[in-house]
Amino acid sequence: MVRKPTPEDKFAFGLWTVGWAARDQFGSASRPELDVVESVHRLAELGASFVTFHDNDVIPFGADAATRDEILTRFRKALDETGVKVSMVTTDTFAHPIFKDGAFTSNDREVRRYGLRKVLQNVDLAAEMGAETFVMWGGREGAEYDASKDLFAAHERYAEGIDTVAGYIKSKGYGMRIALEPKPNEPRGDILLPTVGHALAFIEKLENGDIVGLNPETGHEQMAGLNYTVGLAQALWAEKLFHIDLNGQRSIKYDQDLVFGHGDLLSAFFTVDLVENGFPSGGPKYDGPVHFDYKPSRTEDMQGVWASAAANMSMYILLKERAQAFRADPEVQAAMEASKVFELAQPTIAEGETLEDLLADRSAYEDLDVDAVAARGFHFVHLNQLAVEHALGGR
Amino acid sequence: MVRKPTPEDKFAFGLWTVGWAARDQFGSASRPELDVVESVHRLAELGASFVTFHDNDVIPFGADAATRDEILTRFRKALDETGVKVSMVTTDTFAHPIFKDGAFTSNDREVRRYGLRKVLQNVDLAAEMGAETFVMWGGREGAEYDASKDLFAAHERYAEGIDTVAGYIKSKGYGMRIALEPKPNEPRGDILLPTVGHALAFIEKLENGDIVGLNPETGHEQMAGLNYTVGLAQALWAEKLFHIDLNGQRSIKYDQDLVFGHGDLLSAFFTVDLVENGFPSGGPKYDGPVHFDYKPSRTEDMQGVWASAAANMSMYILLKERAQAFRADPEVQAAMEASKVFELAQPTIAEGETLEDLLADRSAYEDLDVDAVAARGFHFVHLNQLAVEHALGGR
Amino acid sequence: MVRKPTPEDKFAFGLWTVGWAARDQFGSASRPELDVVESVHRLAELGASFVTFHDNDVIPFGADAATRDEILTRFRKALDETGVKVSMVTTDTFAHPIFKDGAFTSNDREVRRYGLRKVLQNVDLAAEMGAETFVMWGGREGAEYDASKDLFAAHERYAEGIDTVAGYIKSKGYGMRIALEPKPNEPRGDILLPTVGHALAFIEKLENGDIVGLNPETGHEQMAGLNYTVGLAQALWAEKLFHIDLNGQRSIKYDQDLVFGHGDLLSAFFTVDLVENGFPSGGPKYDGPVHFDYKPSRTEDMQGVWASAAANMSMYILLKERAQAFRADPEVQAAMEASKVFELAQPTIAEGETLEDLLADRSAYEDLDVDAVAARGFHFVHLNQLAVEHALGGR
Amino acid sequence: MVRKPTPEDKFAFGLWTVGWAARDQFGSASRPELDVVESVHRLAELGASFVTFHDNDVIPFGADAATRDEILTRFRKALDETGVKVSMVTTDTFAHPIFKDGAFTSNDREVRRYGLRKVLQNVDLAAEMGAETFVMWGGREGAEYDASKDLFAAHERYAEGIDTVAGYIKSKGYGMRIALEPKPNEPRGDILLPTVGHALAFIEKLENGDIVGLNPETGHEQMAGLNYTVGLAQALWAEKLFHIDLNGQRSIKYDQDLVFGHGDLLSAFFTVDLVENGFPSGGPKYDGPVHFDYKPSRTEDMQGVWASAAANMSMYILLKERAQAFRADPEVQAAMEASKVFELAQPTIAEGETLEDLLADRSAYEDLDVDAVAARGFHFVHLNQLAVEHALGGR
Repeated sequence: MVRKPTPEDKFAFGLWTVGWAARDQFGSASRPELDVVESVHRLAELGASFVTFHDNDVIPFGADAATRDEILTRFRKALDETGVKVSMVTTDTFAHPIFKDGAFTSNDREVRRYGLRKVLQNVDLAAEMGAETFVMWGGREGAEYDASKDLFAAHERYAEGIDTVAGYIKSKGYGMRIALEPKPNEPRGDILLPTVGHALAFIEKLENGDIVGLNPETGHEQMAGLNYTVGLAQALWAEKLFHIDLNGQRSIKYDQDLVFGHGDLLSAFFTVDLVENGFPSGGPKYDGPVHFDYKPSRTEDMQGVWASAAANMSMYILLKERAQAFRADPEVQAAMEASKVFELAQPTIAEGETLEDLLADRSAYEDLDVDAVAARGFHFVHLNQLAVEHALGGR
Repeated sequence: MVRKPTPEDKFAFGLWTVGWAARDQFGSASRPELDVVESVHRLAELGASFVTFHDNDVIPFGADAATRDEILTRFRKALDETGVKVSMVTTDTFAHPIFKDGAFTSNDREVRRYGLRKVLQNVDLAAEMGAETFVMWGGREGAEYDASKDLFAAHERYAEGIDTVAGYIKSKGYGMRIALEPKPNEPRGDILLPTVGHALAFIEKLENGDIVGLNPETGHEQMAGLNYTVGLAQALWAEKLFHIDLNGQRSIKYDQDLVFGHGDLLSAFFTVDLVENGFPSGGPKYDGPVHFDYKPSRTEDMQGVWASAAANMSMYILLKERAQAFRADPEVQAAMEASKVFELAQPTIAEGETLEDLLADRSAYEDLDVDAVAARGFHFVHLNQLAVEHALGGR
Repeated sequence: MVRKPTPEDKFAFGLWTVGWAARDQFGSASRPELDVVESVHRLAELGASFVTFHDNDVIPFGADAATRDEILTRFRKALDETGVKVSMVTTDTFAHPIFKDGAFTSNDREVRRYGLRKVLQNVDLAAEMGAETFVMWGGREGAEYDASKDLFAAHERYAEGIDTVAGYIKSKGYGMRIALEPKPNEPRGDILLPTVGHALAFIEKLENGDIVGLNPETGHEQMAGLNYTVGLAQALWAEKLFHIDLNGQRSIKYDQDLVFGHGDLLSAFFTVDLVENGFPSGGPKYDGPVHFDYKPSRTEDMQGVWASAAANMSMYILLKERAQAFRADPEVQAAMEASKVFELAQPTIAEGETLEDLLADRSAYEDLDVDAVAARGFHFVHLNQLAVEHALGGR
Repeated sequence: MVRKPTPEDKFAFGLWTVGWAARDQFGSASRPELDVVESVHRLAELGASFVTFHDNDVIPFGADAATRDEILTRFRKALDETGVKVSMVTTDTFAHPIFKDGAFTSNDREVRRYGLRKVLQNVDLAAEMGAETFVMWGGREGAEYDASKDLFAAHERYAEGIDTVAGYIKSKGYGMRIALEPKPNEPRGDILLPTVGHALAFIEKLENGDIVGLNPETGHEQMAGLNYTVGLAQALWAEKLFHIDLNGQRSIKYDQDLVFGHGDLLSAFFTVDLVENGFPSGGPKYDGPVHFDYKPSRTEDMQGVWASAAANMSMYILLKERAQAFRADPEVQAAMEASKVFELAQPTIAEGETLEDLLADRSAYEDLDVDAVAARGFHFVHLNQLAVEHALGGR
């Protein structure tokens, strides 16, 4: 049996996950609306330490001040009663039809101004709730038709928007960081900043990019056929992994938002291995909340909703135990050595060696026995088999 | 009939394209080896202005100095006779088994040093041949198994390698620029720097990144389900579009390297539209060679090889004419206006407007008639239909 | 300019296409509900000859008899006024949450019985409306989790359901044919009968399979990376192409339902070429309505809805003209000859030739100059270039 | 530790798997050629009971009779010494350039006749070697360009070819069965009979289809985004699962041929569950050899080759143990019950119930409490979580 979650696990859930009423592209809701107060209590009981939300998960779009206050009072009470904290807040700039062509990159300037204001208002709420991370998913920033967008202007406007929000956070002294969430497509045909790479590159062009990083989501990278763990690694290398969204996806298709580990299981193992154990020879590590952004399948009733929330945590715990045993196994260490995994941390050009030295080193090129070096095996399949056996608890 | 190519078209071909003997993963060569001298002459006759090559397209791997000199003399003669220039040179760090785990990121440090030396040697050749661009495709830099790579170290080594090459170019005063070529997978399970975005982000971390940019290939982006034209646009926005590799790909599958336009035809139209016409409201433009990196299908004999080379140019010329007519059509301009394409170039926050002004502008948020704005249509389908009709020569 | 549609074009539209209020997975409706009476009138004006519908496109789920009658009376009046006919009817067995695990293959037998009754009731309506085709898309017949389905039982139940409906049609003497619509995934993780092939194979096991055929949808096949035109061809070869659903899809991703031709344009050209011109050496041809199953993008208002409906027809007409010119061009005929396209229609074993004759024919094997035959080029790229140039109106 | 293979496991390997010298699309061989005699001995030592081969894995293309006899004598000796049997033989109709446009569907009739003769000759060898299954993978039967094929004629010729081979087998009384192996693409842009479904449908049109079934390969189905286990299930339902090719693939990309279980691990678990445990409520079962068709990664030397061969068997054994424990767990049985998995085996229309009875059963439709039924949860996520925990050895 899988052990219960503890606060050290730092598990976090979006309120929109368990709260999804299961209305989809082809059908109406299969579950009732869920009160956020109930969600907080149930998630706390299951072992979550944090919740996260879009403004409109808690406060209906267009609610007046009184309604808003009343809801927030109830919500805060639930947080107080349970000890659950808000680790992250994000803004819904995709559901209302005003955002049908995006918020920060809508061709309609009135929409852009409205979207910016909605986000700025939500920054205040996020700060008020003590969130450390402000996620921005530009789900509608994109197009179906290339002619419909000036793509230079689109990147300019996107940068203007993010820079404005980041500047506002700084000016207010909120100490919050922005985490951009890439996605390749759906609901738009092509979404701007489609992958971890594109978003990292974008941040480098921002004026206030120092407080802007990433929130990569498992399924979103996998929808582009990319390796999620490699994406996390490049974000860590760039010191920009501010948040993670874990879930499950099976191959390249629509956004499935399955339970973490119920998609590409082996990839999930390596994701946990990286998050928990870090790089083999050291380097930056992720230490934020373990955040699940999934959807309980439409076939489930409320009992199934809570079972699915628990399943995310059980999967993570189980894979964490497996990953720890994997790294601790001397046979694995020997196999990593044999595969020269640690040798990759050695600089190619030795400390103190100059370019001239390298060019003059005949042993490196002219005199190298190329065929002999080429004949060396890397033993990667053996190492991978050890990994899979550990993942399966088979050693 | 499509008009003939002219020097103004700046067409360029890799010698490995027409020179591909059609040996593939599942079968042996279907065509004889092709002498580069013949390739240069035939490409010149067909209308190409430039050729490009991997070191080993011209000089066999491991050739001695005498062989090398003899080959280069013959090659230069062909260039002189035809007036064809070398616009780009690149290094083969993928075919020989010594590179089976990559060159700059191989776990084996001896391989990394060898790879670096091979590339540096080729930089000299590239400079000698007058190439302005030095493309680097790290086709074997990657892995099939997550456990086999320290992904932090891999990015460190990759950066070390590129920085060393860029530093060498600068130190030699070659005036050449490096263009990285991203690819998501094949021949490795996951290749490092899998997309335009990842490579752009990587460059920002380099010390000598000022002379490092991108060479995006049509099919490589499409193998990740990404929109090639959007990739070009982000590279242009980042001022890093140093070179382009045009070809054809049909959906997400193995790397097809079809003739340009024989893959996603509509996307090819919009690529040409961007390259030739630029962004609707201005911005940076690509002005390098129009370079084709394709493979003549294995079903073709030499006659088919030359027909396929000509086909790339005909496709580009035809789409260029279509794209020019598209932009020149007043009805299209009106449709772009109706779709607010030009409005996206207007800053969201007006010149001189402060953040405080925006926050105080009740017309932007509190008093906005959200439903009225949401009800406005963008007329994107009409604009796209105009584009497709222009592409098809139907207007 | 593209010519106007005529009755000879036999254009048909689903009422759910123009009627889609643009509620999607991530957002609420961007357009008002549309009265079917208006749809019929507008589609007629635009040049459509037929409409098609799901029961619940016209009659709300659970409507009482009086409501139903009133609606049908209005609907019939619109048909009479416009001369528009109902060519196809289909059943909504996916939107209501009772169908969340499918209709004919739900694990819940009560749901299966309910689903069967709903479909049978709709058969009567379809017959009453004069539909010749009864489409069945089992969008919810599938699973996200392999353990959740007995896959043998699922195929048994699916066959039981279709056979029951087909048997009912026969017993009533309705003269209607069933057309199954395959789809690989979305809204389920994996949908049963995911492609044209799977559905064709399934039909062969039915008792009443003689009146069951296919309704392949462009985007559905392309979501599995398959060539739609090849799918149509195999269905024609099996004499089972009863209906077609044309639309547009860009690569492997969520179901886009774009305007026909706004997805893979070159593939659309070849689809029209097959539908209009048939196979090069003859064989069965599709002669049913040209039916569009697309969704007007969520960015569009009602003006954009009608423009998008018109765009489908313009695309088809334009591609039809291009395809006719392609086949009529003597240069194309010569190229097809050179590519031995017609030679494929010659049996491999000559008429009258026995297996023994073949085995004894030394010229076929022992004495064949294999290298000489292997060296022959097929000139496919040239032929394809002619096709693309014709598609682009460039010849 | 994973237990050793036994004869009861019925493990089989293609000689081309361990024998792959690792020449790929982008590089030359990284390993020496391997003598089939050594392969047989090593595979036997590792625990394999069967080997399989293409004609040209054993006998070089175009070898004369003496060479052939000598090789076969050595090969038979190795089989005799080890007790290894030949379970399946297949024909190489893809490597030589004569087959560049396919064998049975080449546009060139001389090629078709040659291909047919090559296959027929190999049928004799297969029978001679005692193979029970004759696999046919038409890897080059397809096209890159729709205009290049008469798709009706292509299906006619394909059927003619398969029927001829099947007829020959029957006429010789060989008692062997043909198993077609579908693949969607690579090395051709689109391959005919791209999926399990298309091949099943094709077989139904054959004259000698009674001895023709399928050999589905894990990665081939997954390259189309399809669920391999569901494909096996439909093939079993059609009583056509004659053989299986197990390997690993990570998402939709080039054909990876990884070790079984090193691709989609969770899917591999469910594949083994189906093969070993059958459908939950009974039905046909696969009982042939457990055949691995994979490629040892190009990074591996010969030690890695044998480690990878062993890894396939270890993966299967481990997953078999997990799958058996999964089904034996009373909690799983209860969860399957709760998810109504067994209820799907109950006919929708009761035994003896007529269509009229169903139509008259008001409890099934008119009086059904639709909302109450719709509100029932299926508890699929809980069941799946149990499956994943069993797969991971976590229960």
